Amino acid sequence: MIATESREEGVRKLLEENVATVEVKENLRKRLLRDSPLRVKMGFDPSAPDIHLGHYVGLKKMREFQELGHTIVVIIGDWTAQIGDPTGRSVQRKMLSREEVAANAQTYLDQFFMVVDKARTEVRWQSSWFGSFDLADVLRLTSLFTVAQMLQRDDFEKRYTAGSPIGIVEFLYPLLQAYDSVAVQADIEMGGTDQTFNLLVGRDIQREMGQTPQDILTVPILPGIDGDMKMSKSLGNYVGITENPNEMYGKLMSIPDTAIEVYLRLVTDIPGSEVDALVGGMQDGSQHPRDVKNTLAMDVVSRFHSEEAAGAARDEFGRIFRDRQAPTDMPEVMVDAPATIAALILQAGLASSNNEARRLVQQGGVRLDGEKVATTEGDIVIDGPAVLQVGRRRFVRLIPKDA
Amino acid sequence: MIATESREEGVRKLLEENVATVEVKENLRKRLLRDSPLRVKMGFDPSAPDIHLGHYVGLKKMREFQELGHTIVVIIGDWTAQIGDPTGRSVQRKMLSREEVAANAQTYLDQFFMVVDKARTEVRWQSSWFGSFDLADVLRLTSLFTVAQMLQRDDFEKRYTAGSPIGIVEFLYPLLQAYDSVAVQADIEMGGTDQTFNLLVGRDIQREMGQTPQDILTVPILPGIDGDMKMSKSLGNYVGITENPNEMYGKLMSIPDTAIEVYLRLVTDIPGSEVDALVGGMQDGSQHPRDVKNTLAMDVVSRFHSEEAAGAARDEFGRIFRDRQAPTDMPEVMVDAPATIAALILQAGLASSNNEARRLVQQGGVRLDGEKVATTEGDIVIDGPAVLQVGRRRFVRLIPKDA
Repeated sequence: MIATESREEGVRKLLEENVATVEVKENLRKRLLRDSPLRVKMGFDPSAPDIHLGHYVGLKKMREFQELGHTIVVIIGDWTAQIGDPTGRSVQRKMLSREEVAANAQTYLDQFFMVVDKARTEVRWQSSWFGSFDLADVLRLTSLFTVAQMLQRDDFEKRYTAGSPIGIVEFLYPLLQAYDSVAVQADIEMGGTDQTFNLLVGRDIQREMGQTPQDILTVPILPGIDGDMKMSKSLGNYVGITENPNEMYGKLMSIPDTAIEVYLRLVTDIPGSEVDALVGGMQDGSQHPRDVKNTLAMDVVSRFHSEEAAGAARDEFGRIFRDRQAPTDMPEVMVDAPATIAALILQAGLASSNNEARRLVQQGGVRLDGEKVATTEGDIVIDGPAVLQVGRRRFVRLIPKDA
Repeated sequence: MIATESREEGVRKLLEENVATVEVKENLRKRLLRDSPLRVKMGFDPSAPDIHLGHYVGLKKMREFQELGHTIVVIIGDWTAQIGDPTGRSVQRKMLSREEVAANAQTYLDQFFMVVDKARTEVRWQSSWFGSFDLADVLRLTSLFTVAQMLQRDDFEKRYTAGSPIGIVEFLYPLLQAYDSVAVQADIEMGGTDQTFNLLVGRDIQREMGQTPQDILTVPILPGIDGDMKMSKSLGNYVGITENPNEMYGKLMSIPDTAIEVYLRLVTDIPGSEVDALVGGMQDGSQHPRDVKNTLAMDVVSRFHSEEAAGAARDEFGRIFRDRQAPTDMPEVMVDAPATIAALILQAGLASSNNEARRLVQQGGVRLDGEKVATTEGDIVIDGPAVLQVGRRRFVRLIPKDA
């Protein structure tokens, strides 16, 4: 294990920086300062196999636990994924088949070990205990919690009050997830703040089943690139950690200025004091938000690709957006021409209806070979490849079929 | 099978007499008039092993089904009994162990076949399907129903509104009971009217699982001997079908006049027209209710014992209550005497506190050797055995320890 002084600093950082809540904090601090490795559980829902920066906030914390000598126990929720986590949802989700879950879990783990040290990680599949769970086990587990306790959950309560259906199966989700803590003898469980209810159920179930209740550490929720909602795949506001450098850089440059600070703190490796300076600079006007976003985006792209790739993405981005040039690489689509501009947009897949295509033109958001298209009237003749641009960042190279 | 004409009359009687509700009646009538035997499910809760007259109402109907050639499928709820039927309860019940359930089920079946024809009965234990029920089965089942559907149930709704705890496990009860219908491919399910919700869930689950939904026949709820609450063991207002003739006769004679008619119709073999005449007689004063109760009690005791036993019970009852004599047979208790009357009542187990004992005396309900005890003051000396009577029907022979 590591030297006492640096351990104390590591524990302080672990418990203080980029942490939302800790339950029970003094207890956890004492346990972390002891020499024996703790078992830190983090459950993942394989119905969302791609890891994005929102998950990365937690993965970074896991890495900190590992650096202090502790073991990460990843629970692959191959059973709970068949239900679907009701957290934050307003409708029941379709159940996944076992095959879908298994494929997704593999994708997930490949990405997981891009961040977390595989050598200090235990991967456990729920099926190793739930596969042999029988009705008696279910009855025991479901007798430990009441309907009212479940309906206290914000999301359940809202759905119940609104008359939206809540499947009884959804009440089982937190109980099964909690039982995972018993199965792996978790000392600590990590999750986002929106998981707090589920994590606390874990404490209760461990206590009821004769184990020492786990301590809980939650990390803040990262907003999506819209700067508003929680980052999530289903909202389309995410940055996947396997996305290519150009996509990743471009998405990070698109976040609103109000989100810059939280991104700097939660997803970069920039030390807190430097983040303070950048944020102060934006406030006193000495730093342009665009430049700070560049610092953010460079850090993140370097982390998941390389400094070179980050530099190239920055240059490409600059070329397109500062010089209003088309990117060097873009999809090519064979089109029938001559045709109206709306028909070309539709063929390029950049709008889903003729009306939408016409509206894009009327709003001034459509360019052909760099020239703004002013009217939806008349047919456009294309002699050779032409670059169609919709909005700031969507480009397609049109290839006329007859050319 | 039986001749068409008598079958039609049998079906009419089955569907019309002493029936609370039928769902779906015309469908069931048609099915009953066909030749093929139907499977009539009736579930029993082995946490209540002793059959009383309240259950007998349903058993009589089962017998009618059998007389028409149909098969009774008794489900021994060895799994649901581990939960405890939440119907009509205002608190969660303690779970039974498997061993307790098995012992109780044996007791139950011994009594069951006192009424129902064993040859046309299939006895099925839930364990033959729930024993191999796994978590996937539970998830499938619990995904078919919503929390709101469950909370629509009167008893759940009341408990939820009142803030009384409802275990999540209790939501599984109706679902498991409903799955029984799938497991035994029930054509019809029987139960008391308070089981209607559970029976309807059975229809839904069968439909969801690709079976033809069962028809449902409910029988009226028999009031207890208090004439007020549902007859039930836990309320102490029941007449068990294995109780001795004197107990049975005495309890039936104790029912209030308002309950006589429903008892005559639901638990005797007296034809409807004769019951009409008895009820009419009580109304016009030509029949004394006590005599009608005697007719009722004679019929029931004869059914479960013999006419001779019924006659003897009637004579014994008359001797005690008309002549105010003590019964020939009563419990004997060794007591410390001299003692206050309250202390004697307590020692005899006829009151649970000194205050209650004193109140009984003050109300004039206590006799010693036939003499009303007028005061709670002073010690009573007993030289030899003495008969202590509390109320009309509770007698204990006191044996002084020093005598």
